[in-house]
Amino acid sequence: MTKLRAHNIAVSLDGFATGEGQSLETPFGHAGGRLMQWFFPTHTFVSTSGHESEAVGAGTRGVDDAFAAASWDGIGAEIMGRRKFGPQQGEWEDESWRGWWGEEPPFHTPVVVLTHHPRRDLRVGDTTFLFRDLAPADALALATEEARGADVRLGGGPSVIRSFLEADLVDHLHVVVVPILLGRGVRLWEGLEGIDERFDTEATASPSGVVHHVWTRKPG
Amino acid sequence: MTKLRAHNIAVSLDGFATGEGQSLETPFGHAGGRLMQWFFPTHTFVSTSGHESEAVGAGTRGVDDAFAAASWDGIGAEIMGRRKFGPQQGEWEDESWRGWWGEEPPFHTPVVVLTHHPRRDLRVGDTTFLFRDLAPADALALATEEARGADVRLGGGPSVIRSFLEADLVDHLHVVVVPILLGRGVRLWEGLEGIDERFDTEATASPSGVVHHVWTRKPG
Repeated sequence: MTKLRAHNIAVSLDGFATGEGQSLETPFGHAGGRLMQWFFPTHTFVSTSGHESEAVGAGTRGVDDAFAAASWDGIGAEIMGRRKFGPQQGEWEDESWRGWWGEEPPFHTPVVVLTHHPRRDLRVGDTTFLFRDLAPADALALATEEARGADVRLGGGPSVIRSFLEADLVDHLHVVVVPILLGRGVRLWEGLEGIDERFDTEATASPSGVVHHVWTRKPG
Repeated sequence: MTKLRAHNIAVSLDGFATGEGQSLETPFGHAGGRLMQWFFPTHTFVSTSGHESEAVGAGTRGVDDAFAAASWDGIGAEIMGRRKFGPQQGEWEDESWRGWWGEEPPFHTPVVVLTHHPRRDLRVGDTTFLFRDLAPADALALATEEARGADVRLGGGPSVIRSFLEADLVDHLHVVVVPILLGRGVRLWEGLEGIDERFDTEATASPSGVVHHVWTRKPG
């Protein structure tokens, strides 16, 4: 059975998944890189980002890496919001933007990009981006078909995660609480009162200072 | 040097320190007892609340109890908001209310109760309640004098904690994150952007499911 899984969703202790004032140069707004500091040293990031080098080494292999690596395990398709694909809004002016990831994106699977402005499918490396205007359940149905029996990753951003949680479609949620107070930005948890009752929850504190919260859907 | 310490401040994962709809019967509003479930089984609670019995036993002695017990260590005075003392608002109609705790309150020290409506000092058991209309710094000065070299506990509620954090008066902050989503209520962290920079932070996950966050003021 295909599961819908969200991984590595970082939030500040006061609940913001991104800061205020997002732009092309500052995708997390005033949060800067602080929400992902735990992630950058991991082997998973270093090896998938092409940052491996003699200076950086091969990356850490502790609990942060264990959780980061799980994100890539058994995934056959991804669903992401348009803002994760690129900074454009509204109609596509042209189709020259091919994502943030250069000519070999790390996905290697179909990726459903949710947008009110569909465009032609785009193949980059061995990743295919499918631009669709779909409600959460329909997006999941398409991604499940594309995943051919493997799981589907819910890639974010926060408002996409929230809409799938509201629709009760998420089977596995990994949230990383970073001990900073951003004060403003986009809240992850808004309007989700009581959904914790549908999940078994577990928390693991990392020596890096963050806390990994893993929620898995209760059986039955 | 007297330190100002706040302990056992429970918040939901979405940041609410109490729910909506507080009343005499439901001091945490719609949160009910969920924010304090981790606390009730501890030896510290069982022994100070008089709930010790053959049925309950002596309480747990794990990490939740270790943190709960620290709240009583080396304290010479407390500061609390009026709502922690009792459900009344506005002018005191009479002075018959002597707090929630019966004739032997667990404090055994002077307690400064912050209120816009001062009343005469009240001695109950060996606890003295001092009702004062004071700004945070002045309340701390009074409590420090009363503590005679020991530390001062900041007892809450959330808006009192927040006002002392805003005034940069807190030396030690122990917050317990409970993996539930309340969705509404009183937020602990509102308006505190960036204060994490003044603290060293540490997080410990408990087998009970909660996470203990301890913030201690950076030296210097």
